[in-house]
Amino acid sequence: MSRFFTERLSKLEAYTPGEQPKDMKYIKLNTNESPFAPSESVIAAAEREAHRLMLYSDPECTPLVSAFSELYGIDKSELIMTNGSDEVLNFAFMAFSDTSRPIVFPDITYGFYPVFARLNGIPYEEIPLSEDFSVNPEDYIGIGKNIVIANPNAPTGIALSLADIERIVASNPDNVVIIDEAYVDFGAESAVALVPKYPNLLVTGTFSKSRSLAGARLGFGIAQRELIADLNTIKYSTNPYNVNRMTMAAGEAAIRDNAYYMNNCKTVMENREYTRDRLCALGFRVLPSVANFLFAESPDVDGEKLYLELRRRGILIRHFSKERIKNFNRITVGTRAEMDALLAQIENILKGN
Amino acid sequence: MSRFFTERLSKLEAYTPGEQPKDMKYIKLNTNESPFAPSESVIAAAEREAHRLMLYSDPECTPLVSAFSELYGIDKSELIMTNGSDEVLNFAFMAFSDTSRPIVFPDITYGFYPVFARLNGIPYEEIPLSEDFSVNPEDYIGIGKNIVIANPNAPTGIALSLADIERIVASNPDNVVIIDEAYVDFGAESAVALVPKYPNLLVTGTFSKSRSLAGARLGFGIAQRELIADLNTIKYSTNPYNVNRMTMAAGEAAIRDNAYYMNNCKTVMENREYTRDRLCALGFRVLPSVANFLFAESPDVDGEKLYLELRRRGILIRHFSKERIKNFNRITVGTRAEMDALLAQIENILKGN
Repeated sequence: MSRFFTERLSKLEAYTPGEQPKDMKYIKLNTNESPFAPSESVIAAAEREAHRLMLYSDPECTPLVSAFSELYGIDKSELIMTNGSDEVLNFAFMAFSDTSRPIVFPDITYGFYPVFARLNGIPYEEIPLSEDFSVNPEDYIGIGKNIVIANPNAPTGIALSLADIERIVASNPDNVVIIDEAYVDFGAESAVALVPKYPNLLVTGTFSKSRSLAGARLGFGIAQRELIADLNTIKYSTNPYNVNRMTMAAGEAAIRDNAYYMNNCKTVMENREYTRDRLCALGFRVLPSVANFLFAESPDVDGEKLYLELRRRGILIRHFSKERIKNFNRITVGTRAEMDALLAQIENILKGN
Repeated sequence: MSRFFTERLSKLEAYTPGEQPKDMKYIKLNTNESPFAPSESVIAAAEREAHRLMLYSDPECTPLVSAFSELYGIDKSELIMTNGSDEVLNFAFMAFSDTSRPIVFPDITYGFYPVFARLNGIPYEEIPLSEDFSVNPEDYIGIGKNIVIANPNAPTGIALSLADIERIVASNPDNVVIIDEAYVDFGAESAVALVPKYPNLLVTGTFSKSRSLAGARLGFGIAQRELIADLNTIKYSTNPYNVNRMTMAAGEAAIRDNAYYMNNCKTVMENREYTRDRLCALGFRVLPSVANFLFAESPDVDGEKLYLELRRRGILIRHFSKERIKNFNRITVGTRAEMDALLAQIENILKGN
């Protein structure tokens, strides 16, 4: 830290993204990317825009917003597009929380929430997950604070039901409830259906996982028009051209190619169940994930050791050192071949080979 | 504003980007874009990456940073890449200013500086430009506050000499001086040469103007490693994957194709001088711009009226309603044909046709 750095942020601990080692070729099961390439029409759309990069992108993301609002059956004014969903989440922390409006979230969840809170000087409280690592909705009913819940949660993969989400939103009418649906397309229920009913609900999402666009950076927020207008005030005060031309075109094409992506999600879900069964047969405890990853621990091998052994063998998974989950690893669900390679190496490690 | 919006930001007035009307085809001379397409190798690089969008981008922007640091003769640790230069500017406001460290900038300059200040709760002071619309370096010598100066300044196009910049930086050793070089490649002197000497200097820049990548969103900051590390703390606390894959590859290719872009800059400078001479011959007062735009007023036609008349005739230029400059317009320098079309319409308007 330089002597010029503001005292206000001197305690800030930044988020640590999943590693991207460059020393060799790895099977990457550590950042919840899709194993499937973007569709042909997405690639073609991005390529077309590469020829027009001398012109600024459209701050309103007009064609993308049109296509998106049609697919989701919402009004254009109920949608904001951002540079990944981290951006819309940060905007929401800035817009709706402050020293007098604290925010709560689970103790085990997306590691960026406490970072956003500290960055914006927002008091926050981490509510412990239940013994079984699920979010207990009762902990949030009428809590009277802003709330952010990833649904399904990460890194556990466990989802709340739509009915429970609705109870949380309905019981906190004076607070904003953010439901982060980064992983919703792999089997959970979306809260977008609740938006017309609740002015305090913000649903966020991303094209990074189910739509194979992690490297394009495209996220979104869906809420009633007043909340979206507030988020736009933040956007136009930070970076109006936040989504570049190529990503905007790619996103629009991805929306129009929805069937391709939903079919990929189905394959990922099948591979998830296959991998879960195999891991269970190897003695693992595997949480009931409805995301594109599994969170699992073995009674026979320490979590960090398993991570390091797999890394040495060319397979990356994600290990977190937080006390409560340090024996677990988060494993992204890839292709069947990738899963078989993973399982073979896990078998070797368990056998001491 | 919804009732959930934080009181802290309730007075925020967002930045207004240049208009992008969709009712007809315009000659766009209002947002300082390059009239030249990206080079073939830039387009090809972006296209290649479109096939790999399912994978996250590299938060460290490794190949881009390597190419860039070679071209500028700096160390990799002295460079941060961002989603447009608005992002690095916002990071710098957040990192180095706060209620006890105010910031100063000219009264007529890039309209985003006061927005960043208000967004981050930073007290700021606007120092009036001299009568001739130049920045008076004496106003900033030993001022003892953080400083941001666009050099050349916008919308005037007037630049400070490197010697004056150095006096400002050297005389404020306990404050960060940000030199925003968005337009430096069109004839001004860069302050990058001063970075090794001054730990309090941050130079920012963009690929939007001279490198034809406005729609790709790529900006950068150059400073000694301690300041860059501080900016990275902010980046990793907001959006580590801030630069997408396609833009990263396009930026690297643009660096390697430097000669193409510097030649385009030369053409823009020639067209600027041509347009300036023609405008002067029509009685305009034209400020001595070394940017890719001209700031001009006519004694014969009101600034807003000229803007509206040109708009009606299919040519967009930028008008600002601020009292001191409301008779001026900012005109982006495009191709010779675009400039001739502009000049022909201005002649018509002056003749009352």
